[in-house]
Amino acid sequence: MVKAKVRVGIVGYGMIGCRCADAVSLQPDMKLIGVADAVVDYRIKAAYEKGYEIYASPPERLDEMSKAGITLAGTLDDLLKEVDVVIDATPAGIGARMKAVYEKAGVKAIFQGGEKHELAGHSFVAEMNYETALGRQFTRVVSCNTTGICRVIGSLHRAGLVERAWAILARRTTDPWKAHSRATLDTMVPEVHIPSHQGPDAQTVIPDLPITTIAAKGPYTISHMHFAVVKAPRNVSKEEVLTVLDKARRVCFVDTADGLVDLASVMELMKMLGRPMGDMWEVAVWRDILSTSRDEIYLVYQVHNLAIVVPENIDAIRALTELESDPAKSMDLTDRTLGVKESFFTRAG
Amino acid sequence: MVKAKVRVGIVGYGMIGCRCADAVSLQPDMKLIGVADAVVDYRIKAAYEKGYEIYASPPERLDEMSKAGITLAGTLDDLLKEVDVVIDATPAGIGARMKAVYEKAGVKAIFQGGEKHELAGHSFVAEMNYETALGRQFTRVVSCNTTGICRVIGSLHRAGLVERAWAILARRTTDPWKAHSRATLDTMVPEVHIPSHQGPDAQTVIPDLPITTIAAKGPYTISHMHFAVVKAPRNVSKEEVLTVLDKARRVCFVDTADGLVDLASVMELMKMLGRPMGDMWEVAVWRDILSTSRDEIYLVYQVHNLAIVVPENIDAIRALTELESDPAKSMDLTDRTLGVKESFFTRAG
Amino acid sequence: MVKAKVRVGIVGYGMIGCRCADAVSLQPDMKLIGVADAVVDYRIKAAYEKGYEIYASPPERLDEMSKAGITLAGTLDDLLKEVDVVIDATPAGIGARMKAVYEKAGVKAIFQGGEKHELAGHSFVAEMNYETALGRQFTRVVSCNTTGICRVIGSLHRAGLVERAWAILARRTTDPWKAHSRATLDTMVPEVHIPSHQGPDAQTVIPDLPITTIAAKGPYTISHMHFAVVKAPRNVSKEEVLTVLDKARRVCFVDTADGLVDLASVMELMKMLGRPMGDMWEVAVWRDILSTSRDEIYLVYQVHNLAIVVPENIDAIRALTELESDPAKSMDLTDRTLGVKESFFTRAG
Amino acid sequence: MVKAKVRVGIVGYGMIGCRCADAVSLQPDMKLIGVADAVVDYRIKAAYEKGYEIYASPPERLDEMSKAGITLAGTLDDLLKEVDVVIDATPAGIGARMKAVYEKAGVKAIFQGGEKHELAGHSFVAEMNYETALGRQFTRVVSCNTTGICRVIGSLHRAGLVERAWAILARRTTDPWKAHSRATLDTMVPEVHIPSHQGPDAQTVIPDLPITTIAAKGPYTISHMHFAVVKAPRNVSKEEVLTVLDKARRVCFVDTADGLVDLASVMELMKMLGRPMGDMWEVAVWRDILSTSRDEIYLVYQVHNLAIVVPENIDAIRALTELESDPAKSMDLTDRTLGVKESFFTRAG
Repeated sequence: MVKAKVRVGIVGYGMIGCRCADAVSLQPDMKLIGVADAVVDYRIKAAYEKGYEIYASPPERLDEMSKAGITLAGTLDDLLKEVDVVIDATPAGIGARMKAVYEKAGVKAIFQGGEKHELAGHSFVAEMNYETALGRQFTRVVSCNTTGICRVIGSLHRAGLVERAWAILARRTTDPWKAHSRATLDTMVPEVHIPSHQGPDAQTVIPDLPITTIAAKGPYTISHMHFAVVKAPRNVSKEEVLTVLDKARRVCFVDTADGLVDLASVMELMKMLGRPMGDMWEVAVWRDILSTSRDEIYLVYQVHNLAIVVPENIDAIRALTELESDPAKSMDLTDRTLGVKESFFTRAG
Repeated sequence: MVKAKVRVGIVGYGMIGCRCADAVSLQPDMKLIGVADAVVDYRIKAAYEKGYEIYASPPERLDEMSKAGITLAGTLDDLLKEVDVVIDATPAGIGARMKAVYEKAGVKAIFQGGEKHELAGHSFVAEMNYETALGRQFTRVVSCNTTGICRVIGSLHRAGLVERAWAILARRTTDPWKAHSRATLDTMVPEVHIPSHQGPDAQTVIPDLPITTIAAKGPYTISHMHFAVVKAPRNVSKEEVLTVLDKARRVCFVDTADGLVDLASVMELMKMLGRPMGDMWEVAVWRDILSTSRDEIYLVYQVHNLAIVVPENIDAIRALTELESDPAKSMDLTDRTLGVKESFFTRAG
Repeated sequence: MVKAKVRVGIVGYGMIGCRCADAVSLQPDMKLIGVADAVVDYRIKAAYEKGYEIYASPPERLDEMSKAGITLAGTLDDLLKEVDVVIDATPAGIGARMKAVYEKAGVKAIFQGGEKHELAGHSFVAEMNYETALGRQFTRVVSCNTTGICRVIGSLHRAGLVERAWAILARRTTDPWKAHSRATLDTMVPEVHIPSHQGPDAQTVIPDLPITTIAAKGPYTISHMHFAVVKAPRNVSKEEVLTVLDKARRVCFVDTADGLVDLASVMELMKMLGRPMGDMWEVAVWRDILSTSRDEIYLVYQVHNLAIVVPENIDAIRALTELESDPAKSMDLTDRTLGVKESFFTRAG
Repeated sequence: MVKAKVRVGIVGYGMIGCRCADAVSLQPDMKLIGVADAVVDYRIKAAYEKGYEIYASPPERLDEMSKAGITLAGTLDDLLKEVDVVIDATPAGIGARMKAVYEKAGVKAIFQGGEKHELAGHSFVAEMNYETALGRQFTRVVSCNTTGICRVIGSLHRAGLVERAWAILARRTTDPWKAHSRATLDTMVPEVHIPSHQGPDAQTVIPDLPITTIAAKGPYTISHMHFAVVKAPRNVSKEEVLTVLDKARRVCFVDTADGLVDLASVMELMKMLGRPMGDMWEVAVWRDILSTSRDEIYLVYQVHNLAIVVPENIDAIRALTELESDPAKSMDLTDRTLGVKESFFTRAG
């Protein structure tokens, strides 16, 4: 007997929503029913161009959106009747209002990192706690920075190498689509509160991760850079750290010796590798920068602010809907269909 | 009888070379033999990852490049023996040195806009002068900005609407891969010489185009913005101008009303449309900004600094090799295989 | 008999207000009574540090502002009782609400370019129309860009050299104090409407100036760059144009040959010349870029977005209050006290 | 008997040289003889405008520099005959070549942080090791970042609060005068080597400072931001740390609550306070960001990349020439003449 495909809706067709829609479309065990949004601008027109069904959310937007020259498939309510699970990719804070709507409609939902842990009652990073999400109605894929921390520092932690960790997060200011008027320029802006929220947020996934984070935003639009100092419980060698990270899923090495000297050149590599939207789903750890000194480990890594959560959302669908109970099998399928790699250069050294 | 495919080599695997390699690979009447470059960095590793054959150019680089963990297919000399035509996408000024090599090897070559018109003796924009390149050994695809001018102002000129034209070119400072240390930041840099070279350069393609250009570079990495003032020989309406540009090939409209309010949002649209590398081969003309006043036309348009010349290189191959003598047929094939559009939104209004 | 000093208040202590306060303080015929603002942040603390009297505006802010550790001199009403004239440097649009307050208090007021011409019924550029402001209750110092256009293109116009003019205004995105979150980054943003408001705005000062402006904002915080094309009624030489601009007040030449190659290097020169706040009150016209071709003139010039209106505000005080009926005498005094130059290098060539 | 003034020359009139020239001019116990440079551009023209004597360095530049419209006072050799001490503010690496020239001329010299410690045999931060420079022929004022580390982390260290420290240095990419073509844009660039040189460099001043630094450069031109994590030998309170830093010389607090939320707003404050060139000689430590947790201290502070070393150079002159043997007296005089503060707001809270 063939298992029926899980029916998925995307609510909020912004920069995460559009990526999730494409990713769902690539899954053999899922069917994208449609995407819901509140306005018809170039983003929705691009979705329509791809043939995605468009739903009005909130429903009262239907009339106005219909005037924009596209044929709508219905309202959010119509979409919710057709789906098993939604990815809520609405702007931060809106998800909190949507939860009741999903509850009423009886659909499962995956929120994003802009929402609080308490909203979903569960926070998700596939490699770390897939099992605990099995069958739940809600989970929350944690933010890009938190996901990056979990993959990298979490992997070192699982290998017993983290007695204490600190990470400075030099975040990108805003996405390109808002860079016309909402960006930071020629300055660096520290966050007022230390620890920044990402440290405690990582602990919603890995409760005993002893990390403190300090954040700032800088004038760039493309991904974040983390500088981490890890104190190990004993002396460690660079080779030992590399071995742990090499085995960590969705973590890849880059080397300045290859010309990958900054955030932008790594992004160029993604384009040259043919990645859709130039995306990097993996965390890129600089291999030739990574160093150790006695019991201390120093790392610099790059986190794509949008793409990194896409495979996590796909896995979260499988966990909530129990499409797949084995985390590794879900992640293998996600990674294969999307093109997530364990190494950017599989042919060359 | 099946016509043999034209055998193509790419010399210089930078940001134009890599795009041309992918574009050649998509052509039913061409075969990509390989790409030549002087170093093995992330760019060449990405080419190798795609399965392209890598050649060392200059030949004396063979040994060092071989040490980088990839298997080379040979030297430039080996490549030239295998091909009918090369796209020379080496850095500006290098092409001038390569011409003799191509002549000696008896291969046709297409240079890029960084080289002087005199090097090739012919400058190329498909829509404007494809026929004059038929059977030549050399041509030069003019630079991104010049190509943009030819498509937009050239189309108005062909429609008899240009008595005089001026364009201010607000150029991007550098490509992302060099943005770590070679960029402009928080300032605008005017070019010292007026007219800037793009005006006279456009006249190598359209000799009687009465245009003067003023250029400056600004702190952005993603495409150029042109501000053009055109004096027509008579009063013109906005509708008349839109009709001409709507018919111009490889020119598309964008509207701020769709949220396409700046260079960056148009680039986001390209990603959302699934364009490889987020590329925009077309010139984007702002439709709701375009205006006229009596005999004057005001236009703002966007030129992608790398992608715009890719379809031109493909057409230039067909012209030089006489694969196709009908310009429209060549351009139709190029546009269909690459995905070049006459309108970004074909379903929506 | 000694003429009593004019008593001046500054309403709105932002980036223009603070400069005007300092400039008023330097005038032998004016007395700065105090500055009014609505919050106590670093700007007001800096004013207090200088010894300026601080007034709460609106009055209901008095209590909250008093808690911030500074001693207030009173409310706006108190200030208005003490002054003959105010410089209203409140954010754009607030001035429109303040006019009634000034009328009721019977004080003269100078609004800034963020307000509409109609609010004041008169728009002011000292060199162009000082006389027409004599004795008025209100005027408006036009915006930085409009002031720049009036000084440069207006001077050419007065010399009979402008049959038609077009200017592309590549504006700075925002001031540094807002650059943490309100800026443009890595993109260029065209204004939707052509002509942009600066052209018509210049005509409120010089009614018959035949100019059309096109504007865009770019990712830089320091001053604007204008690219102007002027069609003269006859053939002109570069020397003739230079002679006219050399005589224009508050216009100085810069040369790329001196290393002054962009907006930022000219700003560095201002710092090196010891200008307060690194200010440039003059328009900087690139002398070695300026060129002519038959009856066309091409100019590139730089307009400081804050400083340029400071001498204009000082002159406007003298005009409204009739402290000085001779425009040249007012401007001479303003320029001497502030340090405004006709040439940046008075000793060297 | 009146002590003769120390006679000072500045070699290299760049962004540090020009500041040092102005600072020397303000000292009652020093006399600026002149400045030496190799070209006549806007920087030298600005120096000439101020009335500084200009010398050609190297001497063979005399003829060419003389053609630029300024009257030279002689060559470097002439300058060296007239001075007791020079501040060598030549580009990094040039100082190493100049040492022999100074030795031959028998003048004392102060090198900058671009030179190696070994060149001078002594590295200088006034508050930390003034005494050890007394009477030496050479010293080196360490770089801006190293000076900042010494003042802030060094002060905590002297107070017994540093068992271990790590600092991430988010450096500005380049100075504004080079921002037209040598900058970083829309990306962050990590330094390849960990520890970055500033940690070991600080140890040339404070040998037992247990710090490791990680550096990166970001796309901004105005000062650096440091993120420091300090592990104390015991639990510490925020109040205790604030008390130590409050007493540290040339360290001032800033608060986000005052609107000082980023590098740029602090720079705006400097302009509003009337600082020459908008300079900040002090390190600005964010008071309301600073926090502690048990035995850990987290700090974010800002280091002006040019101004911070100016008072250090002045003190170094007094130390080398033994004008003043008491460090505190030298620093008091320097701070009073320049306007260096222990608090930016002396009147307000």
